[in-house]
Amino acid sequence: MIRHPAFTVDPWAVREHSLNLDVLAQTESVFALSNGHIGLRGNLDEGEPYGQPGTYLNSVYELRPLPYAEAGYGYPESGQTVVNVTNGKLIRLLVDDEPFDVRYGTLHEHERVLDLRAGTLTRRAHWSSPTGGEVRVTSTRLVSFTHRAVAAIQYEVEAVGRPRGVVVQSELVANETMEYAGDDPRAAAVLESPLVLEENVSTKDGMAIMIHSTRASHLRVAAAMRHEIDGPEGTRVVTEGFGDVGRVTIATRLKPGQKLRMVKFFSYGWSAKRSRPAMHDQVVAALAAAQLVGWEGLRADQREYLDEFWAGADVEVEGDAEVQQAVRFGLFHVLQSAARLEDRPIPGKGLTGSGYDGHAFWDTEIFVLPVLTYTHPRAAAAALSWRKSILPMAEDRAVQLGLRGAAFPWRTINGEECSGYWPAGTAAFHVNADIADAVTRYVDATEDTRFECEIGLPLLVATARLWCALGHYDADGRYRIDGVTGPDEYSAVADNNVYTNLMAQQNLREAAEAVTRHLDRAEGLEVTLEEAATWRNAATAMFVPYDERLGVHPQSEGFTEHAVWDFAATKPDQYPLMLHFAYFDLYRRQVVKQADLVLAMHLRGDAFTPEQKARDFAYYEALTVRDSSLSACTQAVLAAEVGQLDLAYAYLGEAALIDLDDLEKNTVDGVHMASLAGTWIALVAGFGGMRAGRGQMSFSPRLPSGLTRLAFGMRYHGRLLRVGVTPRAATYRLLEGSPLTLTHYGEEFTIVEKPVTRRIPKASVPTLRIRQPPGREITPRRPNR
Amino acid sequence: MIRHPAFTVDPWAVREHSLNLDVLAQTESVFALSNGHIGLRGNLDEGEPYGQPGTYLNSVYELRPLPYAEAGYGYPESGQTVVNVTNGKLIRLLVDDEPFDVRYGTLHEHERVLDLRAGTLTRRAHWSSPTGGEVRVTSTRLVSFTHRAVAAIQYEVEAVGRPRGVVVQSELVANETMEYAGDDPRAAAVLESPLVLEENVSTKDGMAIMIHSTRASHLRVAAAMRHEIDGPEGTRVVTEGFGDVGRVTIATRLKPGQKLRMVKFFSYGWSAKRSRPAMHDQVVAALAAAQLVGWEGLRADQREYLDEFWAGADVEVEGDAEVQQAVRFGLFHVLQSAARLEDRPIPGKGLTGSGYDGHAFWDTEIFVLPVLTYTHPRAAAAALSWRKSILPMAEDRAVQLGLRGAAFPWRTINGEECSGYWPAGTAAFHVNADIADAVTRYVDATEDTRFECEIGLPLLVATARLWCALGHYDADGRYRIDGVTGPDEYSAVADNNVYTNLMAQQNLREAAEAVTRHLDRAEGLEVTLEEAATWRNAATAMFVPYDERLGVHPQSEGFTEHAVWDFAATKPDQYPLMLHFAYFDLYRRQVVKQADLVLAMHLRGDAFTPEQKARDFAYYEALTVRDSSLSACTQAVLAAEVGQLDLAYAYLGEAALIDLDDLEKNTVDGVHMASLAGTWIALVAGFGGMRAGRGQMSFSPRLPSGLTRLAFGMRYHGRLLRVGVTPRAATYRLLEGSPLTLTHYGEEFTIVEKPVTRRIPKASVPTLRIRQPPGREITPRRPNR
Repeated sequence: MIRHPAFTVDPWAVREHSLNLDVLAQTESVFALSNGHIGLRGNLDEGEPYGQPGTYLNSVYELRPLPYAEAGYGYPESGQTVVNVTNGKLIRLLVDDEPFDVRYGTLHEHERVLDLRAGTLTRRAHWSSPTGGEVRVTSTRLVSFTHRAVAAIQYEVEAVGRPRGVVVQSELVANETMEYAGDDPRAAAVLESPLVLEENVSTKDGMAIMIHSTRASHLRVAAAMRHEIDGPEGTRVVTEGFGDVGRVTIATRLKPGQKLRMVKFFSYGWSAKRSRPAMHDQVVAALAAAQLVGWEGLRADQREYLDEFWAGADVEVEGDAEVQQAVRFGLFHVLQSAARLEDRPIPGKGLTGSGYDGHAFWDTEIFVLPVLTYTHPRAAAAALSWRKSILPMAEDRAVQLGLRGAAFPWRTINGEECSGYWPAGTAAFHVNADIADAVTRYVDATEDTRFECEIGLPLLVATARLWCALGHYDADGRYRIDGVTGPDEYSAVADNNVYTNLMAQQNLREAAEAVTRHLDRAEGLEVTLEEAATWRNAATAMFVPYDERLGVHPQSEGFTEHAVWDFAATKPDQYPLMLHFAYFDLYRRQVVKQADLVLAMHLRGDAFTPEQKARDFAYYEALTVRDSSLSACTQAVLAAEVGQLDLAYAYLGEAALIDLDDLEKNTVDGVHMASLAGTWIALVAGFGGMRAGRGQMSFSPRLPSGLTRLAFGMRYHGRLLRVGVTPRAATYRLLEGSPLTLTHYGEEFTIVEKPVTRRIPKASVPTLRIRQPPGREITPRRPNR
Repeated sequence: MIRHPAFTVDPWAVREHSLNLDVLAQTESVFALSNGHIGLRGNLDEGEPYGQPGTYLNSVYELRPLPYAEAGYGYPESGQTVVNVTNGKLIRLLVDDEPFDVRYGTLHEHERVLDLRAGTLTRRAHWSSPTGGEVRVTSTRLVSFTHRAVAAIQYEVEAVGRPRGVVVQSELVANETMEYAGDDPRAAAVLESPLVLEENVSTKDGMAIMIHSTRASHLRVAAAMRHEIDGPEGTRVVTEGFGDVGRVTIATRLKPGQKLRMVKFFSYGWSAKRSRPAMHDQVVAALAAAQLVGWEGLRADQREYLDEFWAGADVEVEGDAEVQQAVRFGLFHVLQSAARLEDRPIPGKGLTGSGYDGHAFWDTEIFVLPVLTYTHPRAAAAALSWRKSILPMAEDRAVQLGLRGAAFPWRTINGEECSGYWPAGTAAFHVNADIADAVTRYVDATEDTRFECEIGLPLLVATARLWCALGHYDADGRYRIDGVTGPDEYSAVADNNVYTNLMAQQNLREAAEAVTRHLDRAEGLEVTLEEAATWRNAATAMFVPYDERLGVHPQSEGFTEHAVWDFAATKPDQYPLMLHFAYFDLYRRQVVKQADLVLAMHLRGDAFTPEQKARDFAYYEALTVRDSSLSACTQAVLAAEVGQLDLAYAYLGEAALIDLDDLEKNTVDGVHMASLAGTWIALVAGFGGMRAGRGQMSFSPRLPSGLTRLAFGMRYHGRLLRVGVTPRAATYRLLEGSPLTLTHYGEEFTIVEKPVTRRIPKASVPTLRIRQPPGREITPRRPNR
């Protein structure tokens, strides 16, 4: 567990008071810094000990063959794995000839602070070597939001007690030894020495540049570093480079209280096309730009960028300090994953670890982009722009699968499918409707017509065409989508998955409407009004199965006829189930890994009556084991909607603390970006009751008994709103932009300059008893005030 | 194509008049000799050229890791691949220092004859070397039915025209170079050098012995050879052994017309347990026994064994010489695959090639064992005895899968599952009911109580328990079996597959009855009458879905709601579909690879009305593409039953000629044992209308217009019957045993000594129009008289 007596709960920081090597790997993920382009795990400056060394550049991957015991048509032949690129954050230290290594000597103090407003990771260590060499080390690290290619570290050593001989080695190191390997299929495949050296240059004035390319994927990666050094007279600096190492060595002698201070600027670039000289110049230029601004300039820019973000995006939670911290922590990581994407994907773990091989999934569109759309919309646009950039590959894949339109990959880095198990990959076509949903939401929220025409329309058209190829009309004129996999990974390849059908229905409708709005653009995509009419017809006829006997929607057709999983016979250590039971066993029973029908009720709430929502929610609660991190936030939203506020609050906690408390025991591989985003969703869509779409934004806020106040910002139609919720009332405030009409519990009102306060109606008491599967009951949340 | 102008259609032989290297690999399968323990592909004596060298010992396999792009619980970790063991059939020849190689010089004549009554493969070649060295070579090869461990070759060289210097090298060679490799997942994985040398000994008196063991599976394989040589005075013989070669070299000089004659006896043994010295002695002893009998003795025993087999099993077909040949060819290969099994499996290709990695599947029980049960019952017992021997592994597998009873492997050699794709492997649980069906049929046919108690009962009990773990009662009290895969490989993981449910129903019932018959034995298996009652209840409540609207049975629940495959858009070169379309695409549509519901109508005909059979047959005909060799024979049986006699006749041809005409273009990998057995099934169950079970055997014979007479033997309840069918009447004759009551078109009669003749009623004209999928129409059969 990361949450440890040494930690404090701080509203604007994650603070570790002492070093606990047992959770070192997890803290590397939690303390990771990124701007969406560069990602640095929170490894100790001196490199060792480590849980998993990690330096990532978005979309730098290596190819590896995907093996199959029995091959099949259309199986992807190669996989992509995120590469640990050149480590530029390495700063080794020798004190009186003893290497600074926290495993030896005495660590008097050790503190690390991730400052969510400053956008920095600061570390303070007070250490004595085994032979008594005592120093204080302070480092502050940032990955710049404003300079996309740049990271920097301010590093300070102070002699304590007596004069000390101090040597600092600041390095660039490629092909670091990776140790992590496990049987868990979710853990990343480990690649050995993926980088082939092309250039290793060091200059007399203390710059080092290394250029490598990946062995099979042929991507060129350049890294450079330069230092500003402030030490006592006589400080000597040597720069050298050989093999996979570039090194600046700074040797000095410090009197007690005297400091060696250094700023390390390092920059990265990668390209599949640009030449070695071009890449060389690119990283050198990035360094020059960074040095021009200087360390203090980078810090100031960083804070300014974040100030602007928090001004719009901050969520205040009163009554639960842990959740207060967690939602900001989550927003910070979501921002980090996306700030400087520029046509690249947001992986499931961001750039915080190599989990899931660094792949991006549908959770970006369904969990991460809603948050960005309402808080930092240009990042959402950038992520969808990446989808547009891989549209040609998705079209090729559709052809390969005998379909039309686009079949976006289930998991990928470069745009090509690399799922090695088709029932849970290829067949999960809902990813296409999820992309369309994100497009629709973004366009609705931003009214960004240029985006709609250039990015949105092609995506909507291609995905609508896919649904036309996937579905068919039955004898009753119902439009069926057979043999696909919905969000729940404990079912696969079923007919008429309600989530899929409803999301496809929306996709088809929105595509038809977008075509009508932009007929000229649609012509360029060879869409006719006739084709758009076929989409509308399919949407209208879309089959949504319903079990009349039980009065609930089956997750997919026939689902409610299956035997219910034998929860009573399942032992606590048999969760997550997929590690202890065969897919065969899971797929044929009523057991749900993650919100599926419940997610449909969130995203397509219009397709359910309040009574259906209450009954469906109760039914699926009893079947959902939450073996996926993509569940709790959605359960929180629906629990809140059906009036189960304390339950919603418990789920909020589960979503919020997934990484700070390492709830799934795999934070080591990177943080769970969708769950962190889900904290915001649980608060805003759950307790704020926010729903938006088709030009309307509505709220039905209601707090659980644990919370005394909730406030959040929303960007919508160019406005910035701030919504404050107390147990009795909600106040809507317009911070930026012109008057806007909103809805509070179904009643429209318009905010102009003056805040509008509305009472929260008395809650009706839920009548259905809710229970989770035996053995998977959720613990009620006791707020930590 | 193997059928070539050079071939003649011979009722008791397969005769090749000239050598066509294009089909060499296919002829190696067709001309393979086996006794179920040893298998020799029909490779040329001199080893080269070859399509695929092949010498097999039943159940000698090598392990290989099964790779997965994404691993999952319960996936088999290692696969098994049949090993090409020490080649003992190699006899090289030098004529005046030129190697005899049909690719060089002039092949004046070349003939190979597989004699189905003699059980030998004879080859005659008349060849001149490039430098004019002219010889006649004759070899006759057999794998003994009576001496399980022994094969022998009589080899004769005659000088033609002038005196010739002749050197014969008779060898044992291990780790032959294998060349075959392809993308087709059905083709065997090729293993390089799987054998590790343990011993290579040669004696002065011309014996050579080699012992190897397999690298990973640790099986010890011993081979030995000894020769009887009859050459002119001065013939010199040298025996030597080194590396993976044992060699006897015979050098002589022949005058024109003079012959060198040699008999090579070779023997094999393998064991996972026995020591090297023990295996050494075992193969030497086998040679001694063979030499005691001598070549002529082995030939005489071979013929006697086959005479006895044919006396009971022969099928006479008048009006179609090709089918006449094919059914005997098929029976011969079925016998070869099973004659000396002794607790080993019958692989899908027998021991004729490395296709399917040498694995055994459910087709043994459903297609091969019915033929053996009524023609050579002790071989059927031996095959089921193998199933009993692997029961502990099947029980372990059930536990691993969270089930009870036994889960027999989908594909295996050693009894452990090695299917690398669970939807088409593990999930195809019907294999368990298929084994139970074979047990029930064998016990019904033989009244072999000892077998029933020792082999049958444990198998029935374990499989019945599996169905109890797999099924559940729904709210209507129906017993459902969800999420399993039926025989059709173009569907997978569906609910209530009719075939599976009906076969499970029979399995449950028969297990309950067997328990009642053998209560004392059942106690030893910890079966109570209460448990047996739960089986009866499940059987009674078994759910068999029916589509009222269409008036047909869906193959599985919901199947008839799926879109029909777009046959019109499918090009001829896109068959077999699984090589050109994704499983995803196939599974979600109405398209059938092989008889599934139609097979249920054959094996569980009692569960369908005649009208249902007619409608179901017509419905599935239009969907069945016959991309599997396990289809035509069943379609023939049902076509005949519903009165579509000419169609049945066309399917008979497709089943019968699968290997002689290489219809699936993969006879190179071995013959299709189930389809060859299916020839008998199509004739006997199709045109003979034979059905048996529960102590009754009935016939409803009717010939298609192409055939003038059909006659077949049947062993039942210790009797040997012979049934002769002409267009107008059927004659039932008792060849062995006491009087027996049979049924002809529903009317009982008893045959004593005198043959009984019964008229065949006038056929009613079928009313439903039958059509195959567009592009997959079957060509009407034009009999080759």
